[in-house]
Amino acid sequence: MNTQKTEVRHGENLLDYLREKGNRLASPCGGKGVCGKCRVRILEGEKTLGRPYPGMRGITLDEWEKGWRLACKTMMEEEMTVEIPDMWNTEANILTSGDYEVTLQPCIQKIYLDLPKPSIEDQTSDADRLLRALGRGEISDLSLVQLLPEIMEKNGYKVTAVLNGNTVIGVESGDTTKCCYGVAVDIGTTTIVGTLIDLCTGDEIAIYSTLNPQKMYGDDVISRISHTIENKDGLKKLQQTVLESLNTMFDFFEQKYNISAENIYHVNFVGNTVMIHLLAGLPVENIASVPFQPVVTSLPNIQSRDLGLNINPNAVITSLPMIASYIGADTVACILATDMLEESGYSLLVDIGTNGEIALGNKEGLLACATAAGPALEGAHIQCGIGGVRGAVNKIELNENGVSYTTIGDQPAIGICGSGIVDVVAHMINKGLIDSYGRLLSADEASEFLAPELALRIGEYNGKPSFLIAAKEEGAGNEIFITQKDVREIQLAKAAIAAGIQILMQEMQVEFDDIQKVYLAGGFGNYINHDHAMIIGLLPAELKGKVVPVGNAALTGAKMVMKSVGFMDAAEQIKKSTRYIELSTRLDFQNIFVDNMEF
Amino acid sequence: MNTQKTEVRHGENLLDYLREKGNRLASPCGGKGVCGKCRVRILEGEKTLGRPYPGMRGITLDEWEKGWRLACKTMMEEEMTVEIPDMWNTEANILTSGDYEVTLQPCIQKIYLDLPKPSIEDQTSDADRLLRALGRGEISDLSLVQLLPEIMEKNGYKVTAVLNGNTVIGVESGDTTKCCYGVAVDIGTTTIVGTLIDLCTGDEIAIYSTLNPQKMYGDDVISRISHTIENKDGLKKLQQTVLESLNTMFDFFEQKYNISAENIYHVNFVGNTVMIHLLAGLPVENIASVPFQPVVTSLPNIQSRDLGLNINPNAVITSLPMIASYIGADTVACILATDMLEESGYSLLVDIGTNGEIALGNKEGLLACATAAGPALEGAHIQCGIGGVRGAVNKIELNENGVSYTTIGDQPAIGICGSGIVDVVAHMINKGLIDSYGRLLSADEASEFLAPELALRIGEYNGKPSFLIAAKEEGAGNEIFITQKDVREIQLAKAAIAAGIQILMQEMQVEFDDIQKVYLAGGFGNYINHDHAMIIGLLPAELKGKVVPVGNAALTGAKMVMKSVGFMDAAEQIKKSTRYIELSTRLDFQNIFVDNMEF
Repeated sequence: MNTQKTEVRHGENLLDYLREKGNRLASPCGGKGVCGKCRVRILEGEKTLGRPYPGMRGITLDEWEKGWRLACKTMMEEEMTVEIPDMWNTEANILTSGDYEVTLQPCIQKIYLDLPKPSIEDQTSDADRLLRALGRGEISDLSLVQLLPEIMEKNGYKVTAVLNGNTVIGVESGDTTKCCYGVAVDIGTTTIVGTLIDLCTGDEIAIYSTLNPQKMYGDDVISRISHTIENKDGLKKLQQTVLESLNTMFDFFEQKYNISAENIYHVNFVGNTVMIHLLAGLPVENIASVPFQPVVTSLPNIQSRDLGLNINPNAVITSLPMIASYIGADTVACILATDMLEESGYSLLVDIGTNGEIALGNKEGLLACATAAGPALEGAHIQCGIGGVRGAVNKIELNENGVSYTTIGDQPAIGICGSGIVDVVAHMINKGLIDSYGRLLSADEASEFLAPELALRIGEYNGKPSFLIAAKEEGAGNEIFITQKDVREIQLAKAAIAAGIQILMQEMQVEFDDIQKVYLAGGFGNYINHDHAMIIGLLPAELKGKVVPVGNAALTGAKMVMKSVGFMDAAEQIKKSTRYIELSTRLDFQNIFVDNMEF
Repeated sequence: MNTQKTEVRHGENLLDYLREKGNRLASPCGGKGVCGKCRVRILEGEKTLGRPYPGMRGITLDEWEKGWRLACKTMMEEEMTVEIPDMWNTEANILTSGDYEVTLQPCIQKIYLDLPKPSIEDQTSDADRLLRALGRGEISDLSLVQLLPEIMEKNGYKVTAVLNGNTVIGVESGDTTKCCYGVAVDIGTTTIVGTLIDLCTGDEIAIYSTLNPQKMYGDDVISRISHTIENKDGLKKLQQTVLESLNTMFDFFEQKYNISAENIYHVNFVGNTVMIHLLAGLPVENIASVPFQPVVTSLPNIQSRDLGLNINPNAVITSLPMIASYIGADTVACILATDMLEESGYSLLVDIGTNGEIALGNKEGLLACATAAGPALEGAHIQCGIGGVRGAVNKIELNENGVSYTTIGDQPAIGICGSGIVDVVAHMINKGLIDSYGRLLSADEASEFLAPELALRIGEYNGKPSFLIAAKEEGAGNEIFITQKDVREIQLAKAAIAAGIQILMQEMQVEFDDIQKVYLAGGFGNYINHDHAMIIGLLPAELKGKVVPVGNAALTGAKMVMKSVGFMDAAEQIKKSTRYIELSTRLDFQNIFVDNMEF
């Protein structure tokens, strides 16, 4: 924590000012107010604190009242006292199950050596001279040894060795110990997020996020797998496209944060099994067909040069281990970040996306399964659905006066995202607008018991009832409504998740009372209303009060491993201690799934 | 050993016949009678055994009388009984200090696995499926993992794993356990010799030898180092040229011995420190200038792909360790092959070439030094000198009737090689034709005591006395004589070696009586007359009777390591137990060197 008094700088925003004064603040979005990374807390500043809450991205009303602001959207009209978080990383803040604490012990270590110069009394070879001073180790590869004499002579045998464990992966002239970076990356099917970490201090210097460019070849993993099967160079193309994206990220770090990408020595990945396979150029064909076996569940040793990444060519490329074709490194990272395998009480982990990954267990061991939830909860396959972008309706209330809602970025509504869908469906169930079989009542049926303001909103779409959320006349960018088919999509999605949870509980012979915590991973988990999730049956109502949203816990897990190498062993332990349950071939799954379709 | 009866095949040579009958016999020279590799022993065959001794290359008179012949030069005029050595490798025969015996335990091992096919009950990843069956290990690299699904599916999950220790470096479809080869290579400054070894049986299948093409860039190591300093791409060129030569060798093995170069998984090199550096593309600049430090004395991990060798891309590339800039992997290999570090008695190793490498010691430890003997003993810098080629005078006798000599291949004499030079100088000293200061007597001075047949041969060259060995009138291809300058060259060479021996003995406080054996390495060591070497002072006369020529002991060492990985540890032990003595900066060296100039 770092507290500062500011000057008045009319027309300047707080982010630019604080950076000018030497503070490190991330702003991957470039000051557009959308990434929510430049959070600071205003302690003193009347005018600033007095302004009404505009729904700053990533700042809740609660936080607003405590003085939290986005620096990039705060104008400097007065003297202020500002508190700047040391670790401004929002993921860590989101991880409410206790911010992770690590002893900084990265696998990469830099050691400065002032070596004795060669003499006729000491004709030791360059390589042995280095290793003798280190007291251990071996040099990783030939290309490095080829450069040794030049590097050593350049600064009179003063060099910095870069070690990965006991292996020398780099030797640099002079003292470069302060320049040592790693990047933790979450390759999502939709989004790629990377955090640049200073391995000397553990500081998270920058966050970068971008859409996964593989989306060109298909929105979900199955369509991307199909692309590799149907196109001769498909696998190579999918790999190249993600590697290019990573190189853009490294370039961004280099340009904006004044580091040299040559000083990035470790990139640690999380992602689902298909994403990790595509990253490494491994065939994914068998993942899509029975018996769904992947090529690897742990990556072999990879150097950056093997992938053509524009960082140090000897940089170590790792991923957290995977468990099965549909339980990937991202789930392992979530389990690591939530400490599920360390606790005696049972925890449930639910990561909702196109595939819902579910894990259940305690320190005795874990079970995991994956269910094809479909993309409805991400806003896809929904008539007016969109992702969590500016203008997406993200919170909805239904009452006698009609519908009220908020949108992301406080923009005119242009669609509805997952949390909004959960809200509206839950309210419609409560109000009796949707019956227990998921049928939308017609205006005629509903008008008998419904407030007129709401009944008026029931229309028709494709010959079936629909429900209007926002009309253009009310200021929305588009007309936004929920259709009967949308409700069916939600039923399929929630039934898949609920059935997965039920089967894991059966397998592990665990009752609701035994479960201490429900970790909800992913962006979605942060934004949905948990009570509403229970009303629609996405989560069992019996687990009320136990839900803990953990945000991008996958990236947190990746960062933990990067900062402290011991967590890689912990991740391996998770892999070993987790039994995968294949749902697709279970005779009971279909029945349990159908049972869970009802509201 | 394998004994066979032959038919009569007029006009056919024994080599072609035996090969036709399925016998493995090497003939790198292509049946020209110069490589001496196709040795067989005739047990029955009157005509063949009755022929006079023609000095077949590599067959001594002793061996001739016991029936040894070169198969390629033996015509099939009668029925014969022929004994074919199982291990026809002449290096092993030459290594008279006891042929090496090894338990076959190469670092490369092939294991055939009939893996269970994936099923919904066993969704184990391809990589884990393999490693589970092996019960150990890790897969070496990404490119191999990328091919795993295809390889495994091709023959219904029947695969052969190729292991280097615990690392999987290859996976092949079906059972390929019988196809597993390695190549041991001696990269000499002048000659490259490689032996193809079947790693399943330990059999040495083929020998290939060729001139080192780096000779284009200089005959000796110093001129090659200069080339790399003076030319920007010099180092790369020198490396490429030797790599091309190796690829030609692999191609030869593939073409002639019906193996696939893809099945070569290990290449183990010996050579002097400069040759090993050039092979690996390591800068050699510092080797040529004070304080003469090399870049490495042990190569880092190298895969064949790193060098661009046309064998299995994951093949393991190793060399024996080196000790210093002028005591290389070849000397370590000689020490390994001669077992010097295992015996309680002291042994002396002398490897005579342009540089003379000398080692002395016993199981308590070794000392080694290198002396710039110059190329005189290899026939260079000698007026009529040539290498050990056909037509080179290799043995000389002087008596009252004049001069008698033999040539290599029994051809008309075209020059004199090292062993011939040692012979003639020794005889001239004995006859008083050269005084103790190395001065050649004039015809006038010598005629007083010399037989007229010899005195007549004293002529003049560049105003100083010379001695005629072979005249054209006597049937020689060229006139061959020894000049005063030739004798000076020999004096410098022998003084350097002798001084090196003397300094090592002083340092180790060893007397002549303590030395049990003198190992003479290199081709030269096999061919010179040891008594004559002592007369000229190349070897101390006090060591008479203790000389053991060990032939290409360097290659023998390389083969030992290839066949049994434990010898690599032994070689490392030799590196650790050998102290290098730098002669160039010793104040006493120059005096001892000058003292040794006299005959």
